[in-house]
Amino acid sequence: MTDRIHLGLTADMHVHLRSGNMMKLIAPTVREGGVSIAYIMPNLVPPVTTLKQVIEYKKELEALAPKTTFLMSFYLCKEITPELIDEAAKLGAIQGVKCYPAGVTTNSSQGVDPNDFTPFYPVFEALERNNLVLNLHGEKPGSHEEDIHILNAEPEFLPALVKLSRDFPNLKIILEHCTTAKAIETVDLIHQENPHSKVAATITAHHLSLTIDDWAGNPINFCKPVAKLPSDRRALIEAATSGKPYFFFGSDSAPHPLLSKARHVGVCAGVYTQSFALAYLADAFEKVGALDKLKGFASDFGRSFYNVKSVVCNDEVVLVKREVVVPEAFGNNELTVVPFKAGKLLNWTVEWTK
Amino acid sequence: MTDRIHLGLTADMHVHLRSGNMMKLIAPTVREGGVSIAYIMPNLVPPVTTLKQVIEYKKELEALAPKTTFLMSFYLCKEITPELIDEAAKLGAIQGVKCYPAGVTTNSSQGVDPNDFTPFYPVFEALERNNLVLNLHGEKPGSHEEDIHILNAEPEFLPALVKLSRDFPNLKIILEHCTTAKAIETVDLIHQENPHSKVAATITAHHLSLTIDDWAGNPINFCKPVAKLPSDRRALIEAATSGKPYFFFGSDSAPHPLLSKARHVGVCAGVYTQSFALAYLADAFEKVGALDKLKGFASDFGRSFYNVKSVVCNDEVVLVKREVVVPEAFGNNELTVVPFKAGKLLNWTVEWTK
Repeated sequence: MTDRIHLGLTADMHVHLRSGNMMKLIAPTVREGGVSIAYIMPNLVPPVTTLKQVIEYKKELEALAPKTTFLMSFYLCKEITPELIDEAAKLGAIQGVKCYPAGVTTNSSQGVDPNDFTPFYPVFEALERNNLVLNLHGEKPGSHEEDIHILNAEPEFLPALVKLSRDFPNLKIILEHCTTAKAIETVDLIHQENPHSKVAATITAHHLSLTIDDWAGNPINFCKPVAKLPSDRRALIEAATSGKPYFFFGSDSAPHPLLSKARHVGVCAGVYTQSFALAYLADAFEKVGALDKLKGFASDFGRSFYNVKSVVCNDEVVLVKREVVVPEAFGNNELTVVPFKAGKLLNWTVEWTK
Repeated sequence: MTDRIHLGLTADMHVHLRSGNMMKLIAPTVREGGVSIAYIMPNLVPPVTTLKQVIEYKKELEALAPKTTFLMSFYLCKEITPELIDEAAKLGAIQGVKCYPAGVTTNSSQGVDPNDFTPFYPVFEALERNNLVLNLHGEKPGSHEEDIHILNAEPEFLPALVKLSRDFPNLKIILEHCTTAKAIETVDLIHQENPHSKVAATITAHHLSLTIDDWAGNPINFCKPVAKLPSDRRALIEAATSGKPYFFFGSDSAPHPLLSKARHVGVCAGVYTQSFALAYLADAFEKVGALDKLKGFASDFGRSFYNVKSVVCNDEVVLVKREVVVPEAFGNNELTVVPFKAGKLLNWTVEWTK
């Protein structure tokens, strides 16, 4: 068995780096975790909705992590106009727009109504003509009346994905951090119906490992969308290791201060995986004998989908078979973040080569 | 609408009072919450398995709460013999034996294998001949191989309940704290098949209110069995308010120190409802216009099933329509317990009359 895996330029196409002190702590960990290119989520407070904000945010990140290539995004809301998209595209300021249904996860209170995307169709047309990406948080908001809860919120969203894929056959759409067998099946069906479809799905590292039993009673593993059943996890592993180019890596690494996790009410949703992103993946792929599929999933497919032509640093990632123990926590007394699988042994370590 | 509900001698047939300082804090709250008769769970550390233990435990409880009638139980394990059951029955020391599948909830590590109850059949025969109760925690332990997880653990257990009910048609069996529509349906089917069946099910107050979305991110609402889907909750409400005598109240009130709840890993399972047990129930019953069914559920059916002939205090419970705010916490700096619906308004208050 090989003990070195050359991954080239790796891409994590769903990254939360936050702002302020958390950003300062976390931005450097993108590279530590083995990621060359990171697509950055815009759900700051306030959300990233202007050219000025997105350009400044990128500058801050580049100052903290000069060897990491940052791809940037806007937060979909009524401030995002087709004209703004055209201008941002011309400047190369963004690679996509993230759509959060209102109220489904951290800082999503300003999101859109997933029952009716039509008010945003002019924006989607602008994305399409500029070859930019629409990133979907694919969950319906919970509703007692409609029997929508955290387990079926993603399946209930899928008809909206199918409709969008038909209404915008040339729009690059990503169903982000998908968590259900039903989502995998739907994305596959979209590609069977239209082999030229530009619909893709990202899969996190932690959803290859977690099921509902792992976050019940362990808030550190609680995220949105929540990890589902063993059968769902099997479908995610199968998709990630399938070699299909429309399934690729987006960690959805989402750091929260320990104080926001160790609470009896109001636990923040998010699993922090950035510091060991590639190592978690390697363990999951190795477990099913699919290490040969890792480069496609973690490097090639995402880069190709986003059409990434240049990077700020050409160092390449090599995974080396060398054990490492995930620390119990990062940071300091003022700001502590507990990583996924804290205290556990991982089998692979990241090295960078010229 | 009535603003006083006479409930007579109320019965909470599933109560965790713990030991030591927690017991001292919680035992008096049985009466505060409006409960005359409480059936006490034996999952202490070590579990209650001897006559000496159960007699001493009862004495301790009676010293702390002299007006509460305590019904006692043994913890099913290999130390529990038919001879012990016969002797305990003769002394009136216990009213039943609680069976925990190994590893499913707080202090259940010494539980039994729910895939094969036959080693305990002689004990069940002893319970049957002494007219004592077998209390089942009806969940299969989680298993990746068998695809058993916290959502299907109860449905997967139900065939074992059906088998027991057929093998011991004269044994009083309770499926404790049932949480799924499937469980309600199965208990109904058992009674359709055998109208003389002695199978019953307890339902908690919190499962009439919670669904999965309420405990995801709120460890204070996390318990085992976990609250399930809105459709399950509807089935529980329907059963509780059905007037069927084989569905009655067992709060499964399970206090944990706040420090065991406000954790990022290893949150203890249990919802504490004792202090407002009857008020929570009244709110749930009122919401569906079924206050006239409350006395059967919370007083008559459980007392009749357990054949409770005498109580230590004949004070009776009256629910009065008077608002009360649930405190944010009970106890003191050394031991704080956060109650269910902390900070929320309840519509009914308990009074005791001679």
